[in-house]
Amino acid sequence: MHETSTTRRWHRAQAGIGHGVETIDTPSLVIDLDAMDRNLARMAAFAHAHGLRLRPHAKMHKSAELAQLQIRHGAVGVCVQKTDEALALTEAGVRDVYISNEVIAPSKLLRLAQAVRAQNAKFSIAVDSLAGVERLAQALNAADVSAPAAMDVFVEIDVGHGRCGIAPGAAAVTLVRAVFEHTVLRFAGLQAYQGAAQHHRTGAERAAAIARATLAVQGTRQALEAAGFKVPLVTGAGTGTMALEAASGVWGELQAGSYLFMDADYAANEADPLAPAFEHALFVKSQVMSRQTGHAVCDAGHKSHAIDSGMPAVWFPQGLTYSSGGDEHGVLRVDGPGPLPDLGETVWLVPGHCDPTVNLHDFMVGVRGGLAAGVVERVIRVDARGCLG
Amino acid sequence: MHETSTTRRWHRAQAGIGHGVETIDTPSLVIDLDAMDRNLARMAAFAHAHGLRLRPHAKMHKSAELAQLQIRHGAVGVCVQKTDEALALTEAGVRDVYISNEVIAPSKLLRLAQAVRAQNAKFSIAVDSLAGVERLAQALNAADVSAPAAMDVFVEIDVGHGRCGIAPGAAAVTLVRAVFEHTVLRFAGLQAYQGAAQHHRTGAERAAAIARATLAVQGTRQALEAAGFKVPLVTGAGTGTMALEAASGVWGELQAGSYLFMDADYAANEADPLAPAFEHALFVKSQVMSRQTGHAVCDAGHKSHAIDSGMPAVWFPQGLTYSSGGDEHGVLRVDGPGPLPDLGETVWLVPGHCDPTVNLHDFMVGVRGGLAAGVVERVIRVDARGCLG
Repeated sequence: MHETSTTRRWHRAQAGIGHGVETIDTPSLVIDLDAMDRNLARMAAFAHAHGLRLRPHAKMHKSAELAQLQIRHGAVGVCVQKTDEALALTEAGVRDVYISNEVIAPSKLLRLAQAVRAQNAKFSIAVDSLAGVERLAQALNAADVSAPAAMDVFVEIDVGHGRCGIAPGAAAVTLVRAVFEHTVLRFAGLQAYQGAAQHHRTGAERAAAIARATLAVQGTRQALEAAGFKVPLVTGAGTGTMALEAASGVWGELQAGSYLFMDADYAANEADPLAPAFEHALFVKSQVMSRQTGHAVCDAGHKSHAIDSGMPAVWFPQGLTYSSGGDEHGVLRVDGPGPLPDLGETVWLVPGHCDPTVNLHDFMVGVRGGLAAGVVERVIRVDARGCLG
Repeated sequence: MHETSTTRRWHRAQAGIGHGVETIDTPSLVIDLDAMDRNLARMAAFAHAHGLRLRPHAKMHKSAELAQLQIRHGAVGVCVQKTDEALALTEAGVRDVYISNEVIAPSKLLRLAQAVRAQNAKFSIAVDSLAGVERLAQALNAADVSAPAAMDVFVEIDVGHGRCGIAPGAAAVTLVRAVFEHTVLRFAGLQAYQGAAQHHRTGAERAAAIARATLAVQGTRQALEAAGFKVPLVTGAGTGTMALEAASGVWGELQAGSYLFMDADYAANEADPLAPAFEHALFVKSQVMSRQTGHAVCDAGHKSHAIDSGMPAVWFPQGLTYSSGGDEHGVLRVDGPGPLPDLGETVWLVPGHCDPTVNLHDFMVGVRGGLAAGVVERVIRVDARGCLG
């Protein structure tokens, strides 16, 4: 398999366990394990203090090893967005995965139902249409899954993001009623995620968006209770707004994912004094491969880091600005009096958006002891990289 | 290996050879093989008519199978940007690879030198610094490569892109002289690529940029000849400007890559009447997974296609506009009176930029007989996917 030879080459070339940071080839995705551990502890303490379930979003790291680490730090399981992410993580040992997204294709639902049948892990899923409920029940039936409440189903309502999710209120009641028509399904609660609010820069904007989302959830819960349906759980929230959902009294489970690594986009948000202060733990190690008059060029472009949420920030050396050099290059200029880095000099970048950045890499290099003089402790596989189905 | 199990699942789930297009899971990267073959033939005829060498840029497709196909259609070999792309493609059987980019890291240069030593393929490389020349020679020496002219070296000059490449003229002469100081190296010519010009929308802007680039190459060649150095070859050009380089009388080799697939960004350029008319041959097959009032949501976001050059165009159904729904979703709205697509309906997208889009996928599904009713002829591996080193 070419993957295998590529993997072997990668292991041989990019990072050796026990070797110093300086030996990591570039560009590579590097985790500051000490910073990540502090982020894990802060999130665990936050969820515990608020009496909330924590189900981090593994769409961000796509790694079974990191999912298990989060579970050891108090998470009840993880979320994913895709059927094949769920299959990749459960094949790699994760035991509780929630697909916080709609799955409509019968072929995907059959793959999922066969995994439910195998009973190696607990799967749950979101729905926002009658067809989604019917097709899910048909797939479970086709896979001979018939036990009562074999699969948890969350009804997704649109609380302001304007993407997936049915309208709050009466439409949600109709959909919940449809879930109850299938004994193989268990109505587990509401999926309520205001994704757009995560990236509102000011705390006031985020507070207003989550206040509207809270009203939408409360109204839907009242309509469901009036129709005789209890809502076991409301799940949602992200790293940008989690303190607001936690304070709302409505959400019972937090789905934040980026807290583990923190990216430049989240760092650009006005900080929420009620939220934990998470640290950057994910970096792209790159180096200068061309040096010209007035600029230097590093070997990390947008095949090394995603730029959907802006260019990466230069972490070290300080005083540099990164601008796009295309797929394989980054153009570095000094934004002060400092000198340009030399040819071959290491440049540490903080990606603009961690989720699609991780999805570009097959491995993450975990470093203990800091970026300056640390040691490679482990190489973490991105198990679900490229699992789009 | 998780790669292997993921690969097996992918093969099992996403596309079966001999099966109809309708069975391809979503989101998947699909090649219209008939359109690709026409693009191959048009490019071969263009290069032949101009008496130019064709060395397509494999950074775009990262596939040994497609590189071999291009070589069977008249290419002398391929270009890549990264050491590990060169190693992945040559391990998979490609016999002539030019790294049209600078490599400075001694560890990368040693990997490359060891591959040169193995003599399974011909490697060549670009340089833009004295240190680059010295380190390359040292690595070849360390790998016991000592035959005269064992490796071709192109000196890259900046012809207006403002990224890598030394200044045209005297600085280039100094660098060429340094190459001649190492008998293991052969001065193969000049690398002159005006990347920025590829995306100038109007033909007049592109013509002006390549006219300036032509003067820079001519001036450098004259300075080299005055110093007693002949320039064996000038290599460069891209899909957006190739007819201009071809008409210049200066370039002897074309490095165009995107012509094979054509993307939405190149299609947005004002067409050059002297260039072949290339067709879209690369598509993302996606499907509607949520349908709301006023919009539908498809299952392809920017983990399925790169958005550095804009959102994908909706190829079919017509009359739809794609806007970003984030990493895993695309929001579809009608831009005319037409209806929204139904839940589960297939939506074909043309990626904004093919190179980083291909790099998101482990496989490309080759379809014969058109997107509407064709059959899966083969599944093409993206051998160098994620090879960043």
